[in-house]
Amino acid sequence: MKIKGIEHIGIAVNSLAEDAPFWKHILGLDHSGTETVESEKVSTDIYNTGKGKIELLEAMNEDSTIAKYIEKRGQGIHHICFEVEDIHETIAELKEKNITVIYDKPKVGAEGFLVTFIHPKSTGGVLVELAQRQS
Amino acid sequence: MKIKGIEHIGIAVNSLAEDAPFWKHILGLDHSGTETVESEKVSTDIYNTGKGKIELLEAMNEDSTIAKYIEKRGQGIHHICFEVEDIHETIAELKEKNITVIYDKPKVGAEGFLVTFIHPKSTGGVLVELAQRQS
Repeated sequence: MKIKGIEHIGIAVNSLAEDAPFWKHILGLDHSGTETVESEKVSTDIYNTGKGKIELLEAMNEDSTIAKYIEKRGQGIHHICFEVEDIHETIAELKEKNITVIYDKPKVGAEGFLVTFIHPKSTGGVLVELAQRQS
Repeated sequence: MKIKGIEHIGIAVNSLAEDAPFWKHILGLDHSGTETVESEKVSTDIYNTGKGKIELLEAMNEDSTIAKYIEKRGQGIHHICFEVEDIHETIAELKEKNITVIYDKPKVGAEGFLVTFIHPKSTGGVLVELAQRQS
């Protein structure tokens, strides 16, 4: 598998309206977009840091994994996303190594990336997203 | 303040020996160093991803903030670190904006960076490190 770098860090927040100002105005990060990701039931605010992005994640409803995460652990860092060259090849390689991949077939995530996740039980407690840019 | 990008993501692990293989052998990240940071009472394994680093953090003793973090929350993502151009200017600016900075005077962190942290109560639950590279 070929990892190209940290694509973004996903942060679970109660409210984009209330929690985004720290990232935007205090840290002064460059807001590059807002979108909803239906497959994950989240609204997301995306910020470029110059090297990797910050994605703030607000649950669209109580069934969202983000709502469940906040209920259990509170607001905070939800996952790390690495950009990979080829998501299908990556998934095949991980499965061959008995790593628990959440989506066997990649879904379309924020910004049109093809994504899957590695379960935290395979990583030492970290939810790892893998994403391939679609040209 | 001028943020230059995500410098690293700090991950609290029980044991570098047991937990590093996922990052090194499964993801295939490039191991760039191992060091102890006395000021934080941690041993750290550092991996370059191509864009930002992963720092695995193992407590040197039970007084380490990493030991306390794992006891409370389990293994997982501990903090995000942004590289800044000027740490002293950044600290002054944050204090002026009533943001809770943990070290008023920067300490020397891993790889010789000058660092401080923003308390999670000021960020929406995320421990944010800020680091200036020393030339």
